[in-house]
Amino acid sequence: MKVLVVGSMAYDSVETWAGKRDRALGGSATYFSLAASLFAPTEVVAVVGDDFAASDLARLRDRGVGLAGVQQVPGETFRWGGRYSRYFETRETLFTELNVFSSFEPEIPAELRDAEVVFLANIHPRLQLSVLEQMTAPKFVALDTMNFWINGERAHLEQVMKRIDLLLLNDEEAFALSDSGNMLEAAKTIMTMGPDVVVIKRGEHGAWLFAKDHTGLVPAVPLAEVIDPTGAGDTFAGGFIGYLARAEDFSLDSLKQAMVSGTLAASYCVQDFSVDRLEIITMNDLAVRHTRLREVVSSLDATFVS
Amino acid sequence: MKVLVVGSMAYDSVETWAGKRDRALGGSATYFSLAASLFAPTEVVAVVGDDFAASDLARLRDRGVGLAGVQQVPGETFRWGGRYSRYFETRETLFTELNVFSSFEPEIPAELRDAEVVFLANIHPRLQLSVLEQMTAPKFVALDTMNFWINGERAHLEQVMKRIDLLLLNDEEAFALSDSGNMLEAAKTIMTMGPDVVVIKRGEHGAWLFAKDHTGLVPAVPLAEVIDPTGAGDTFAGGFIGYLARAEDFSLDSLKQAMVSGTLAASYCVQDFSVDRLEIITMNDLAVRHTRLREVVSSLDATFVS
Repeated sequence: MKVLVVGSMAYDSVETWAGKRDRALGGSATYFSLAASLFAPTEVVAVVGDDFAASDLARLRDRGVGLAGVQQVPGETFRWGGRYSRYFETRETLFTELNVFSSFEPEIPAELRDAEVVFLANIHPRLQLSVLEQMTAPKFVALDTMNFWINGERAHLEQVMKRIDLLLLNDEEAFALSDSGNMLEAAKTIMTMGPDVVVIKRGEHGAWLFAKDHTGLVPAVPLAEVIDPTGAGDTFAGGFIGYLARAEDFSLDSLKQAMVSGTLAASYCVQDFSVDRLEIITMNDLAVRHTRLREVVSSLDATFVS
Repeated sequence: MKVLVVGSMAYDSVETWAGKRDRALGGSATYFSLAASLFAPTEVVAVVGDDFAASDLARLRDRGVGLAGVQQVPGETFRWGGRYSRYFETRETLFTELNVFSSFEPEIPAELRDAEVVFLANIHPRLQLSVLEQMTAPKFVALDTMNFWINGERAHLEQVMKRIDLLLLNDEEAFALSDSGNMLEAAKTIMTMGPDVVVIKRGEHGAWLFAKDHTGLVPAVPLAEVIDPTGAGDTFAGGFIGYLARAEDFSLDSLKQAMVSGTLAASYCVQDFSVDRLEIITMNDLAVRHTRLREVVSSLDATFVS
């Protein structure tokens, strides 16, 4: 099945203990599509400025990402700058310049409107709704959001939530959206708002899947060294959604495998700045790390000795 | 094998969203021994005041806990008071009254000195050392500690760490002890300080086992409602150490099962105030929850589809 993602393409300036990168390729649609395209044909709808390098578009194209929905318009590309503390306990936003992104009105090219799987990355919920209205008959719609919309655009967000299959969000967002600090209670509340499936991302603590009759965790791959966690959540989403599109199936078994796939992709994302690692990984890399992740939870392989 | 624990017996005053308890039975040795005694004969070395109720001693005795090493002396029992925020994000200590605990000098009764498995709960490292000097030939020694000793009694702590097999601590303590904010790096550093095995407890995020050639996670049992998390760490330790003593084996396979056992015991501890739930659980309760925990990580059961 074909995957369509609507989100941002950006230039990020990032500082971590490992160094500094200026104007590095970033944005939710960028990370997402590089991960999803490992599994299934992936099309991006986004906007960039006339400063956006042809070589950066080529990096996506080289990985098979479709760019027919990327509008290049006069002005500067969305830019974000941030600085992380030594062990990523905190992140400071240094600047956010929306630039051409501020007047982004996603237009889905006619030939992409039949995409079966849609990922609405973290943009204004009004725009997320307008995308859904342009699609002909998506089979599976997933949505990401953030506290900014949860607190400031609640009505629009609740409207779009009624039309999605899956909400992906981090724990802080889940707690804000549900007004609960208990993860199970939060997921249950969110499921009454629309989506049948909720995924709560908890960074280094892994990600939880909530579906009918299932509550499951896939731990993050433990890493001795993280270089730059920017984009890990969107990479997770890309691995997740790409897997589902490849499986052409949205059953619980597929969702569980999608959790693993997202986790493995994200584990590579954080091991270098920008998409530098993500854009070169192979299915074999994922398989190797899968074996390692199974070993992490192998304490539960044995039956309980009573 | 016989388990010996040296730690505190206390009366706790606890406030959580679920209510308030005054002078509730608590203390590291109490929680530990109630969990460990599910698996193996367990002996407590501790001190209580003359206010300590015979009925509270009976609660331990009824679960098979040996109390020959509990000294009852004139004065008041150790008391601690604390208040938790709604979802246990923070804990405020309202008071700590050491009382008879302030002059505690653990004396191991002659008939207990041959215990094969020793748990040194969180007390002054100087006292932990003095216990080890009284034991004849322990086969496995585990230690708990806290930031207070890590920062204030580092030399004593490092001395006792050279003589132990296992250090159990929470993530914050592991980071302080190793001067690292990365869990793998922290565990590696701590292993150079003595113990061959390190367990890092991360509360609702589960517990990690670090041993030669193994890094593993056992997630905490996800719970929709926590009543009182006091004692969860000591209960984990009790389930863990009790399991090892029952297995009479300290191999990696046993350590992995011990992680599961500790996790299951702790999951019951937090579901009521004080030891109210812990003191009534059975092996069958643990088995039921074991099945549930396996389901939590079942996404990793399948092989990776590449």
